[in-house]
Amino acid sequence: MSVTHPIGFSASGVAAGLKASGRADLGLLVAERPAAAAAAFTTNALPAAPVVLGKRHLADGRARAVVVNSGQANAGTGPEGLTDAEATAAAVASAIGAVAEDVVVCSTGVIGPRVPVDRLTAALPDAVASLDTGGGAGFAEAILTTDVRPKEASATAGPFRVGGCVKGAGMIAPRLAHLATMLAFLTTDAPATPALLRRIVAERLVPVWNSVVVDGCQSTNDTVLLLASGVAGGPELDRPEDAPELVDAIEGVARDLARQMVADAEGASTVLVVQVDGAHDAAAARQVGLAVAGSPLVKTAVFGADPNAGRLLQAVGDAGVPVHPERVRVALGGITMIEAGVVLPPEDGLVEAMKEPEVVVEVRLGDDDGSATVFGCDLGYEYVRINAEYRT
Amino acid sequence: MSVTHPIGFSASGVAAGLKASGRADLGLLVAERPAAAAAAFTTNALPAAPVVLGKRHLADGRARAVVVNSGQANAGTGPEGLTDAEATAAAVASAIGAVAEDVVVCSTGVIGPRVPVDRLTAALPDAVASLDTGGGAGFAEAILTTDVRPKEASATAGPFRVGGCVKGAGMIAPRLAHLATMLAFLTTDAPATPALLRRIVAERLVPVWNSVVVDGCQSTNDTVLLLASGVAGGPELDRPEDAPELVDAIEGVARDLARQMVADAEGASTVLVVQVDGAHDAAAARQVGLAVAGSPLVKTAVFGADPNAGRLLQAVGDAGVPVHPERVRVALGGITMIEAGVVLPPEDGLVEAMKEPEVVVEVRLGDDDGSATVFGCDLGYEYVRINAEYRT
Repeated sequence: MSVTHPIGFSASGVAAGLKASGRADLGLLVAERPAAAAAAFTTNALPAAPVVLGKRHLADGRARAVVVNSGQANAGTGPEGLTDAEATAAAVASAIGAVAEDVVVCSTGVIGPRVPVDRLTAALPDAVASLDTGGGAGFAEAILTTDVRPKEASATAGPFRVGGCVKGAGMIAPRLAHLATMLAFLTTDAPATPALLRRIVAERLVPVWNSVVVDGCQSTNDTVLLLASGVAGGPELDRPEDAPELVDAIEGVARDLARQMVADAEGASTVLVVQVDGAHDAAAARQVGLAVAGSPLVKTAVFGADPNAGRLLQAVGDAGVPVHPERVRVALGGITMIEAGVVLPPEDGLVEAMKEPEVVVEVRLGDDDGSATVFGCDLGYEYVRINAEYRT
Repeated sequence: MSVTHPIGFSASGVAAGLKASGRADLGLLVAERPAAAAAAFTTNALPAAPVVLGKRHLADGRARAVVVNSGQANAGTGPEGLTDAEATAAAVASAIGAVAEDVVVCSTGVIGPRVPVDRLTAALPDAVASLDTGGGAGFAEAILTTDVRPKEASATAGPFRVGGCVKGAGMIAPRLAHLATMLAFLTTDAPATPALLRRIVAERLVPVWNSVVVDGCQSTNDTVLLLASGVAGGPELDRPEDAPELVDAIEGVARDLARQMVADAEGASTVLVVQVDGAHDAAAARQVGLAVAGSPLVKTAVFGADPNAGRLLQAVGDAGVPVHPERVRVALGGITMIEAGVVLPPEDGLVEAMKEPEVVVEVRLGDDDGSATVFGCDLGYEYVRINAEYRT
């Protein structure tokens, strides 16, 4: 169940010969009528051409189709890259009977090479013919690069459905930050306005993805796109309070996808969940969580199943957030390792807790209300192998 | 040639049984009369006890001795850790005939365990008896932890001598940021005032160490300490313009030590030098350099000798510094890889350039005057092995 779980959407994934492997590399998602749309993009100062074009095409809050190619990121391609993205949007628009401004283009893959637009457009008739209201899985597969598994999620909120998929295995960090690029597509059939979708993106989706860290590298292509077909019917939904259950369901799907993304991160064998409580506010809590989950020393300790309290202490102090040492408490797998800022002698059970597929670190900073949950993963030989033996 | 190259200092390094290995683990540096002193410390929010005490003892700009133990960081040790550091200062003061407030204590090693102060004080008579005006090498050896090699440097500036040593192999990042802790000690025999030393630390030494990145982790113990014995004589030096050659020599020694530190970083096989020019100012240039040298994707590409232009582009854009894509030029080993923001087809010679012991990346952002040189290193299997197979 994926982006086609909500009604009003069809999707497909085909092989256009963009990837050397011959695997599916062209994903198409089409709304049966123009959908309300909102997105968040990478803040990388050298964004890919599709990011530049996507911002322009989404300015009116409407989209009819999303086309994703995997194999080339269309980044570092200069003005020609923008022309390629525009040509892709025009070709898709013509193939489905829409205007180019209603087509969102996303790319993921190697930075530098241009997208072979001729091959892409040659495969478009096949992609359009394959469009199916059950085609979400094929779409989720076609957008992958170094990912091992497709990552899909869905939910139901009263009369509405929510679906989504994501790709991204490396270059994952806060500030919508990922390479091998993070692309997330969420759909709903609720009659949400662009204004509501923008608020959901800003208030619910960006914080979820900004609480995920793999390698701290921010991609040139990261995109989170939320589309509402409105086909489920009912009165227009313009504010979060018009449909709180829907808003929570969308956030839930995003959180599910983010967790799947970390579990499938480049070389990851363990999911690291850092729960921070008692901070001054949620932002401070997230900053501490990211410092812990993003620390190479913590990540290698998780890989080695070494309950290293010192590295946790160092990372908590390294977040740029003022803390009172005497209030700091850190536990791992429910076992206290640091109390009142003091490292305790290691207890039985810690090594076992670190061998679980998911390691949970709880950090308490004081008695304030700020909380955050951050997802990360370990750092082992496989991350080095994937990234050092990769050949440009 | 090290901290005892300038006249007026003697030093020693002995084995006090603080390290399980039995290697030298207690370093002592003594000025024949109270020296002018200034320091910069870690900004980690959970600083080690010696950092807290060091700030207090250096408030008057004077120091007579520095005692360094390796084996225990005396961090995460609470109020008892501070008591241990105070007891150490008092014992050294009594052994050399000084006041405790003139003794600076530094610790490096495992976070959590207390320093065995009884063993340390038991070895003090030996350390004092071993003090020698040629003892800098022994001192530089005793302060090491996971370092492979001692790191020493010296210079001469007119009538004055400058010397220094540093330790630190992991937890190395901007903001005076290192674990396994970075400790740097610089000495001169010039008659510099505490005010001049403070300016040199702030304006010359902090920027050097903030341009070094290994793993992005900031230690609880990092300390840079600059001492001036004044024994070379001459009129008091109170401002940088009183002795520009001396100031440059001190910065030169620091830069030499920083480069040695990167070459000896945990698991490093290649030094990565990132030269950034044409930025808005030096701070922006340094930020871009740190983003490139600190990127795990760039670091693994250097380890794998893969001339991956996309990862360089991504890292330049990920620095949080606004850039004009059409002005961005990146070269590696003198070969242009990115021109006007566009990735060029890979040229012959790039792979060879990446197999050198030192890889130089040049980044030009525009025509402004901001420049910076950042030192980093590669990330390979050995980093993972050292940090994952480490046992707490």
